[in-house]
Amino acid sequence: MNNRDQFRAKHPLKLTESKAGAKPLSSGDKEADKARVDELANRIAACQDIFYAERRRKLLVILQGMDTSGKDGTVRGVFGRLDPLGVRCVAFRAPTIDEREHDYLWRVHREVPAQGQLVVFNRSHYEDVLYPAVHGLIDGKECARRYQQICDFERMLSETGTVILKFFLHISKEEQRQRLQARLDDPDKHWKVDLNDLKEREHWDAYRSFYQKAIDKTDTDVAPWYVIPSDSKTHRNLAIASIVVETLDAMKLAYPPANPEYLKIKVT
Amino acid sequence: MNNRDQFRAKHPLKLTESKAGAKPLSSGDKEADKARVDELANRIAACQDIFYAERRRKLLVILQGMDTSGKDGTVRGVFGRLDPLGVRCVAFRAPTIDEREHDYLWRVHREVPAQGQLVVFNRSHYEDVLYPAVHGLIDGKECARRYQQICDFERMLSETGTVILKFFLHISKEEQRQRLQARLDDPDKHWKVDLNDLKEREHWDAYRSFYQKAIDKTDTDVAPWYVIPSDSKTHRNLAIASIVVETLDAMKLAYPPANPEYLKIKVT
Repeated sequence: MNNRDQFRAKHPLKLTESKAGAKPLSSGDKEADKARVDELANRIAACQDIFYAERRRKLLVILQGMDTSGKDGTVRGVFGRLDPLGVRCVAFRAPTIDEREHDYLWRVHREVPAQGQLVVFNRSHYEDVLYPAVHGLIDGKECARRYQQICDFERMLSETGTVILKFFLHISKEEQRQRLQARLDDPDKHWKVDLNDLKEREHWDAYRSFYQKAIDKTDTDVAPWYVIPSDSKTHRNLAIASIVVETLDAMKLAYPPANPEYLKIKVT
Repeated sequence: MNNRDQFRAKHPLKLTESKAGAKPLSSGDKEADKARVDELANRIAACQDIFYAERRRKLLVILQGMDTSGKDGTVRGVFGRLDPLGVRCVAFRAPTIDEREHDYLWRVHREVPAQGQLVVFNRSHYEDVLYPAVHGLIDGKECARRYQQICDFERMLSETGTVILKFFLHISKEEQRQRLQARLDDPDKHWKVDLNDLKEREHWDAYRSFYQKAIDKTDTDVAPWYVIPSDSKTHRNLAIASIVVETLDAMKLAYPPANPEYLKIKVT
C-alpha cells in the first residue's frame, strides 16, 4: 500500500489516544528513521527547482492539529531544506478586525500558491469552523454550511491547477500535557507559552469530536486529509515527507523543453 | 576594519570592472572560504529563533544588481538555512496593472517585515528609478525626487524599528556575458533565459551610471549600501553573510525574560 492510501483518513474517523502513538513507517531504528527524513527532505528540495521551472503546478500543504501538535516542527523538518525563493509558509493567527469584517475565506484565498509555488499553511480556514463550533459561536447548521463552502473552495482551487494535501497532526492528550509542561519548566521556552493553550486544552474532547466531523465532511479526492500519528516527531515528519515525495513523484515533474534557437545565440 | 565599513559604498561611487572581481575576504583557499560561508549561514539560521522570539526587531535585506548578478544565488547561499517560518523572500517583477496604478512604494510597503521577521527583497523600489531612468521615461528632476522619497521612506522604516541592509551585487560586463552564454548553451537552463536580458545588456553603461548615482544619493546610515564584488559567487556570499552576521551580533539578541510564575504551573 502506498503512503497516501495508508494515511488517508478513514470514515467515520475515530481519533483514539493509541493511534496518536503509532509508527507505521518505523524501521525499528530511530537513527535510521531520522536519516530517512533527511533524505526525503532533500528530495523535496531537489524537486523544487523543477517545480518552479515548470511554472505549471501549484502545491498547497495545509497543517492542522491541536496546540503543540508540531506544525512548526513539520515546517522545519520537512520543508526546511527548500530554497526560500520557492516555499512560502503562512501562519494564520487570530483574525484582525479587517479580516473579521470579510468572509473567513478572504484572507486564505489571498495566500494560495501561484504557478510554480509551494505554500504551507500553518493553520488555515479550518480554524474558522473548529474554534467557533467548540465555543458555541455557530450552530450545527452553520457548521454544515461552512463544510460545504470549504469543499467548494478547495474543489475550485484543484480545478484551477492546485494540488492540495491536508495533514491532521494527531497527538494524544497525554503527549500535549508533556509538551505544555516542558515549555513551562524551561525558562528559555517561556516566550512560547500562551496561557490560552491551557484553557483550550479544557475543550480537548470537543476539539477532537469537531476535528473528526470536519475531516469526515471535507475529505475529498481533490483535497484529501491525511491523519498523521504525531506523538513521535520523527515519525510524524517521516510520514508527511513520504506523502509529499510520493505526490511530487506522481506529478512527473520535468524541465520545460529547450529552445534550439537559443543554442545559436552568441552574447556580445 | 569590520566588514560593514569595508564594503560600505564610497562616494562618489565608481563601479569599475576590476572591482567586481575583488575577493577581499578570501583566505586564498576556496574550499575553506566555502566552508566559512556555510558556517556563517548556519549562524544566521541560529540567530533566527531568538530574533523571532524577541518579536522586537525587523530586518530588511535588499538585493540589487544587474541581470545574472546572483540575487537568487545569494538567497540560497546565505539565507537558505533559515527556517521557512522565519524568513520571507519577495521577488519584485514587472509591476502589474494594479500596481502601476499606485505609487511605486505601495507594493513594496506591503511586504516589509513585521516584528521578529526577516524579509529579503529580490529587487525592490530601486528598479522604479533605474529602469525608467535608463529608458528615458523620467527626467533628472523626477529621479532626484524619487531618491528623496526613497530616503524618506527608508528613514521612516528605520525609525519604526527596521534594520535595513542594501546590497549591490557588482559583476563585470564580461562576467555577465559568460553567465548569459552559459544559460543559452545549456538546454536544461533554457527556462531561465529571458531574451530581454540580452536587450537590457545593451544599456550596460547607462545602468552602471544610474546605479552609481542611485547609490550615492540613497546611501544613509540608517539604510546603508554595501557594494559587493560578485564575479565570484563564493566570495559574494562570504561578504554578504559576514555583514549579516556582524549586524545580527551587534543587535545583542536575547530570549525574552522567563516568567517565574510559569515555573509553578502543573498542566493537568
